[in-house]
Amino acid sequence: MKLWGGRFSKDTDALVEKFTASIPFDRRLADEDILGSMAHCRMLAACGIIGAEDAAAILKGLEEIKEEIGRGELEFSLALEDIHMHVEKWLTEKIGAAGGRLHTARSRNDQVALDLHLFVRREIREVELLIKNLQEAILNVAEANFDVIMPGYTHLQRAQPILFAHHLLAYFWMLERDLARFRDAYKRADLMPLGAGALAGTTFPVNREMVAEELGFASLYENSIDAVSDRDFVAEFHFNSSLLMTHLSRLSEDIILWSSAEFGFVTLDDAFTTGSSIMPQKKNPDVAELVRGKSGRVLGNLVALLTMLKGLPLAYNRDMQEDKEGLFDTVDTVKMCLAVYAGMIGTMKVNSDRMYVAVDGDFASATDLADHLVRKGMPFREAHAVVGRLVAKCVQEKKRLDSLTVQELADASPLLGEESLKLLSPQSCVAARQSRGGTAREAVAGQVAAARVALAK
Amino acid sequence: MKLWGGRFSKDTDALVEKFTASIPFDRRLADEDILGSMAHCRMLAACGIIGAEDAAAILKGLEEIKEEIGRGELEFSLALEDIHMHVEKWLTEKIGAAGGRLHTARSRNDQVALDLHLFVRREIREVELLIKNLQEAILNVAEANFDVIMPGYTHLQRAQPILFAHHLLAYFWMLERDLARFRDAYKRADLMPLGAGALAGTTFPVNREMVAEELGFASLYENSIDAVSDRDFVAEFHFNSSLLMTHLSRLSEDIILWSSAEFGFVTLDDAFTTGSSIMPQKKNPDVAELVRGKSGRVLGNLVALLTMLKGLPLAYNRDMQEDKEGLFDTVDTVKMCLAVYAGMIGTMKVNSDRMYVAVDGDFASATDLADHLVRKGMPFREAHAVVGRLVAKCVQEKKRLDSLTVQELADASPLLGEESLKLLSPQSCVAARQSRGGTAREAVAGQVAAARVALAK
Amino acid sequence: MKLWGGRFSKDTDALVEKFTASIPFDRRLADEDILGSMAHCRMLAACGIIGAEDAAAILKGLEEIKEEIGRGELEFSLALEDIHMHVEKWLTEKIGAAGGRLHTARSRNDQVALDLHLFVRREIREVELLIKNLQEAILNVAEANFDVIMPGYTHLQRAQPILFAHHLLAYFWMLERDLARFRDAYKRADLMPLGAGALAGTTFPVNREMVAEELGFASLYENSIDAVSDRDFVAEFHFNSSLLMTHLSRLSEDIILWSSAEFGFVTLDDAFTTGSSIMPQKKNPDVAELVRGKSGRVLGNLVALLTMLKGLPLAYNRDMQEDKEGLFDTVDTVKMCLAVYAGMIGTMKVNSDRMYVAVDGDFASATDLADHLVRKGMPFREAHAVVGRLVAKCVQEKKRLDSLTVQELADASPLLGEESLKLLSPQSCVAARQSRGGTAREAVAGQVAAARVALAK
Amino acid sequence: MKLWGGRFSKDTDALVEKFTASIPFDRRLADEDILGSMAHCRMLAACGIIGAEDAAAILKGLEEIKEEIGRGELEFSLALEDIHMHVEKWLTEKIGAAGGRLHTARSRNDQVALDLHLFVRREIREVELLIKNLQEAILNVAEANFDVIMPGYTHLQRAQPILFAHHLLAYFWMLERDLARFRDAYKRADLMPLGAGALAGTTFPVNREMVAEELGFASLYENSIDAVSDRDFVAEFHFNSSLLMTHLSRLSEDIILWSSAEFGFVTLDDAFTTGSSIMPQKKNPDVAELVRGKSGRVLGNLVALLTMLKGLPLAYNRDMQEDKEGLFDTVDTVKMCLAVYAGMIGTMKVNSDRMYVAVDGDFASATDLADHLVRKGMPFREAHAVVGRLVAKCVQEKKRLDSLTVQELADASPLLGEESLKLLSPQSCVAARQSRGGTAREAVAGQVAAARVALAK
Repeated sequence: MKLWGGRFSKDTDALVEKFTASIPFDRRLADEDILGSMAHCRMLAACGIIGAEDAAAILKGLEEIKEEIGRGELEFSLALEDIHMHVEKWLTEKIGAAGGRLHTARSRNDQVALDLHLFVRREIREVELLIKNLQEAILNVAEANFDVIMPGYTHLQRAQPILFAHHLLAYFWMLERDLARFRDAYKRADLMPLGAGALAGTTFPVNREMVAEELGFASLYENSIDAVSDRDFVAEFHFNSSLLMTHLSRLSEDIILWSSAEFGFVTLDDAFTTGSSIMPQKKNPDVAELVRGKSGRVLGNLVALLTMLKGLPLAYNRDMQEDKEGLFDTVDTVKMCLAVYAGMIGTMKVNSDRMYVAVDGDFASATDLADHLVRKGMPFREAHAVVGRLVAKCVQEKKRLDSLTVQELADASPLLGEESLKLLSPQSCVAARQSRGGTAREAVAGQVAAARVALAK
Repeated sequence: MKLWGGRFSKDTDALVEKFTASIPFDRRLADEDILGSMAHCRMLAACGIIGAEDAAAILKGLEEIKEEIGRGELEFSLALEDIHMHVEKWLTEKIGAAGGRLHTARSRNDQVALDLHLFVRREIREVELLIKNLQEAILNVAEANFDVIMPGYTHLQRAQPILFAHHLLAYFWMLERDLARFRDAYKRADLMPLGAGALAGTTFPVNREMVAEELGFASLYENSIDAVSDRDFVAEFHFNSSLLMTHLSRLSEDIILWSSAEFGFVTLDDAFTTGSSIMPQKKNPDVAELVRGKSGRVLGNLVALLTMLKGLPLAYNRDMQEDKEGLFDTVDTVKMCLAVYAGMIGTMKVNSDRMYVAVDGDFASATDLADHLVRKGMPFREAHAVVGRLVAKCVQEKKRLDSLTVQELADASPLLGEESLKLLSPQSCVAARQSRGGTAREAVAGQVAAARVALAK
Repeated sequence: MKLWGGRFSKDTDALVEKFTASIPFDRRLADEDILGSMAHCRMLAACGIIGAEDAAAILKGLEEIKEEIGRGELEFSLALEDIHMHVEKWLTEKIGAAGGRLHTARSRNDQVALDLHLFVRREIREVELLIKNLQEAILNVAEANFDVIMPGYTHLQRAQPILFAHHLLAYFWMLERDLARFRDAYKRADLMPLGAGALAGTTFPVNREMVAEELGFASLYENSIDAVSDRDFVAEFHFNSSLLMTHLSRLSEDIILWSSAEFGFVTLDDAFTTGSSIMPQKKNPDVAELVRGKSGRVLGNLVALLTMLKGLPLAYNRDMQEDKEGLFDTVDTVKMCLAVYAGMIGTMKVNSDRMYVAVDGDFASATDLADHLVRKGMPFREAHAVVGRLVAKCVQEKKRLDSLTVQELADASPLLGEESLKLLSPQSCVAARQSRGGTAREAVAGQVAAARVALAK
Repeated sequence: MKLWGGRFSKDTDALVEKFTASIPFDRRLADEDILGSMAHCRMLAACGIIGAEDAAAILKGLEEIKEEIGRGELEFSLALEDIHMHVEKWLTEKIGAAGGRLHTARSRNDQVALDLHLFVRREIREVELLIKNLQEAILNVAEANFDVIMPGYTHLQRAQPILFAHHLLAYFWMLERDLARFRDAYKRADLMPLGAGALAGTTFPVNREMVAEELGFASLYENSIDAVSDRDFVAEFHFNSSLLMTHLSRLSEDIILWSSAEFGFVTLDDAFTTGSSIMPQKKNPDVAELVRGKSGRVLGNLVALLTMLKGLPLAYNRDMQEDKEGLFDTVDTVKMCLAVYAGMIGTMKVNSDRMYVAVDGDFASATDLADHLVRKGMPFREAHAVVGRLVAKCVQEKKRLDSLTVQELADASPLLGEESLKLLSPQSCVAARQSRGGTAREAVAGQVAAARVALAK
């Protein structure tokens, strides 16, 4: 008979028991559950709701159960539904009827909400550390290859020469925003729900502030119905993770492109690639590919949660049990991706010569020629057209822009001359972009310094 | 050293090994993998690509491995990456170098595609059976309660009296379309990919038709690149499952509403409900709620797959390894939901009295009064307005429509009289809707007959 | 010929022109585009990049164009692609070649990024106001019906008596978190991208800080590639909107349930409902239904954006043009839903008698009886079982809990007696939940006070 | 006053009117609405439900309205809500009270369902034609470049030499499956809903089969509640479109890669590319990028619909009005993408020399060397290792595989010799893959023939 079975005249159907049980996954919350129960127990005793002796027995029992779970000595059973019922059952077996007093002034609704808050709060902090770790790896690679020039791309067409460090640092700032989002999300996970009971509060003279303080919560829910119905903090974790994974998917795309024979811009370390079962020559950027692929999975978990919540009336509905597996999956995925990425980035070899060849033979300096005409007084739109025609001529005649003769330049516009050609080297193009946030060495050095400051926070 | 490690000078990073390994989940494909390998082996021998003796040893070895896996005697290891490598390794340990001949004319790319096709094909058939099982349960409940009248709803407002059987049968037809979609999807899963090699076909004189025939495939991929890149059949399985779950989520909503104290239309069996840890009186429709919630999860898996596939160049990319976990999850979810639902529907008690009270006291017969006026010659739009004003009068005076006096009716329209009142009973309203697909007894009986025919197919 | 057509030898295909043009939707950004161009122009002049006279002409021209657009005097054309090209073309027609100087030190990539930032920033502020407006409406309804008692639900089963105000206030706090999320998102939209050029910065001595200050931006992008590639702030707007709509979908579900004949808890105002084309008696909660339905649409827009961004290499890719229509749709949807909801909530009639009947005849006070036993010394788990059996007895004998005799109570447990019955009225149950966040009058009054303080911020 | 306003005492709030009106988008269904109404009218007359004279007037009126809408002579108004009410109003203005007879035996619920079915059915056929059109373009390009060899890729690493035609044809077969899915979906859209009334059927002696026949429907809904609640056919259209767009997104990725300077495999026609507002040299593959980006949008529409439907009770709910805008958007997007893609593919220039250089200098023939060893008797796994070590040696010594000396080969394995080198040319590798579906000329020619057959269907 279930612990809640007083009014039932029949046992639960075996398939239903399996279908509704959450113990196969919510056992992961065992530590949080016991931590929360201990705080609850101390509060009950402090408020005189249970006796000091009972409280001591409960605390001792919970401590032992925690250790026994840690040592894998306890067996989980579908019939006991969830981690909460397991702990209560074990406790009662251990200390007798006093164990039945622990659930006073509490419902599983506010209990599981507390467990989830504790879990999400901790995981946010861990994700933050892993983000910083990856930022540091990116920053190190950028600094170690500070002088490397590569083509910057738009539409995957070579656009303008840039510093490789500049390109890589774009990801630093995306991660910095991810960090900010997780920090903001922490505030909304840092709310204590216990004391909400099933939905309406409790008839016992509890002290919710005491529980909040003991568990380090900044504040508590002002509305008991909201406390048991709120999964916003889970949704926000999913979204922040989805956007983080979107960033990593873009970095992955870059790395996969750069690792191709056609680009050849980087060589991934053997330890971070794998081979083919059939093609002996293959060395594949599997890590980047998997991370890119997993961005779909994390987005899927976000969709699952929001679709599940859509249209639910207040307060708790059993649908909400579906909040956990997706959360655990997203947590594991995001942490693993961040960890493995830092290693891969940190060990990759940058082929600066291949990058330089790519940028040197191209028309990536065309903008600079147009800007040059502007500085000589021509409206930009007109300058754009003049240089556009020069490029068309080069393409047709299979020439480089910097191999045009002075006469050819002058034919295009009298404002162009010998000195114009000097602007066309990748180095000149890079050096010319000194605006804040630009790709000139000085600007990027400033950016690195700002990144170091941000990282030190 | 990995089986593909010839060209590598360094071992795989431990974290990378864990990150890229698929064995924790693709071990579920062990049976399919061995089945496919046996067909491949027989074909290799039949085509003279490997010797008969080697083939015999391989087949015997694979058979043993299958049994050993079934008995849980073999240990899986992250270092061996996936189920394919595990089987090859075990085989080689068992029969020596001949084991290394099995992977001739094959790549893991076409091998895993084959495994997935075998898996999806079988699961489609299992889902089809479970759908029919639920359809049968629905049909039985409809027949067993054939005379029960309830309010039909639009906008969750009582609209017109209907047969309860009619309402329930709407789900029968949704499931019938689900069945048709799964059957159509089967055709597109029933394509044999082996022989595609890594992507370009194989240099060995294989006989792909023979493999297809042995494994019961209707046809084979005409393009080897397509064969290893195609996950359409997985996406289609996900979508069909998502739509099926959408249907179940709607049925769940109905059941949850009907189980509420306010509606009280059905009582779920104790064996299919659960209680509360705090509120002794609670008996909750958890099964229906969980099914409704799980519709989000299945949609999430669909989104995950399509987002993963988006923008991948041909042919195989490692991102595609992400196809499996979501598929397994959707398969398990859908099958479990269908199974448990049939049980819940089949045991629920229909409270016909509560339904009748709900339909009797309402204005659900207003349309019939308007139709009556139309039959007497008034344009429908005008009739609608006349009856609308009568309803407003009743609402204001807190009266039932059938308690209006003949005088009041006549005041509203000279076309109304004593006989008009007879049309207002729920029974009359139901009986009047004899159009095909309508809610009159005869029409619903015809529908039940059609459903029985469909089910027998 | 296009403004960028210098190097092209062929005109754009007509279908391609239609396919790639964004002017049908980005014309909505005309004001932002002109505002940004004016700031850019002033900066160019202040930095000596263009002459003062040209700048004056440009500013005057832009001002006129803005007015002409406002008056609908200008015609848009697919051939001119986007709002940026339109404005430049009109400007050049108006002031001659000087118009061609405006695009100096700027690309459409940073220009459209600026427009989007200006747009999102403003819309966030508007959404915040509309949220506060709805919060106020909710708070007013809660206060106006402060003494109304209703059943609190879990699993849509009556659980415990609560104040109607308490239930409604749960939504106040959800909206309060929505507000916080939009405010946090504002910080990440409040970054100035101009000066990033196409991707690498600009060769002109621009003053980005000056533009930022003039347009009221708190800070600017530190990396030019990030500046043109970042759509995080759009994604965050979509997510915050999705979660807000999830909340409104839950409130809608409550309202739809309450408006049903079965619940009858509220009556929506005629002005906020609509009728049926066929059933004269119908009065439907269309607004709540549409809002619930639109939660899917907003989630769809979020999925669209994240899927689009997935796997894009740096920097700008044309895929990103797809960011706008979904954003406009989400902005319009969310604002309209918030506005119409405030009106609907504010005019709905609360049927306190129907609510009381629902809570009075039920077992919603069972928890209180169990708590009573606990206070008399019985462990909670045991008390739960005792009361559970009493409920089962009542259900079987079709009795109310408060109609049990003293003897029947005493039979269940010697700890129960006459005084136990007093605890069973809805009023007693509500009054007993005095814990912070609970449903007792005093606790809810405290909550209302806290809400007023929050709203005043 | 609304046409349904009989029981209402107050006008609709202006904001609500705007919020709930569907006329801004459902006017697109005007033709379908009138077509359906004419069939309904003829049936009403044939069944004696309305008089022949009235029917004639209605049909004439509807015909005129259709033409007037086509000529843009009629004005739409929010107050009239939707296209159905507009048509009825115009009709009544035109022919007097008889217009009010058209809505006999019909509700907007079954009317809009009919309109949607007519719309989806037609659009499926149009999409099918556009798919075939693109397939033909692909097939033509494949045939026109039949001898071109390129590297086949897995993990974006060069894997094995393939025919360019073979690669392109992979998309032919994906589109062939898309076609099959749309054809299957047609069957489920080809169901006639009219006669379902609001939800329960109608009290008039209608002939639903007659309407179905006149409008060319294969069958009709057996259950009236299902008829008005079913949006499966819309969901299926969305999914089929999402998968089609996923395919196009993959082709787009290939085209974008091939158009990059690094690959240089194809040159898109000027008419199918666009330029940059700042960089005069740019020529961007915008069409491919936009198509790739729009795959997110179409998936978003699918998610929106399924999330909207999730958890709706039967029968019609106003949420379902949200089905239309997403559908129209997906229809327009998919059709435009298919049309523009056929043009782009058909005009692109294939740079066979660049492809050959890419395949010639690489290790793409390594598998063939391993296969060679297998044919000499070595187990494949061992052969893989031998060749892997040779590749590693080449990489280290910066050599091509075909420049290894006979001695070096023999050192690796005594089974290797002079004749082994002959296998290493791209031509040999391609020629060797003669298995069905493989990349050898003969196999691809067979594939082309099969494709032509499929296309002719």
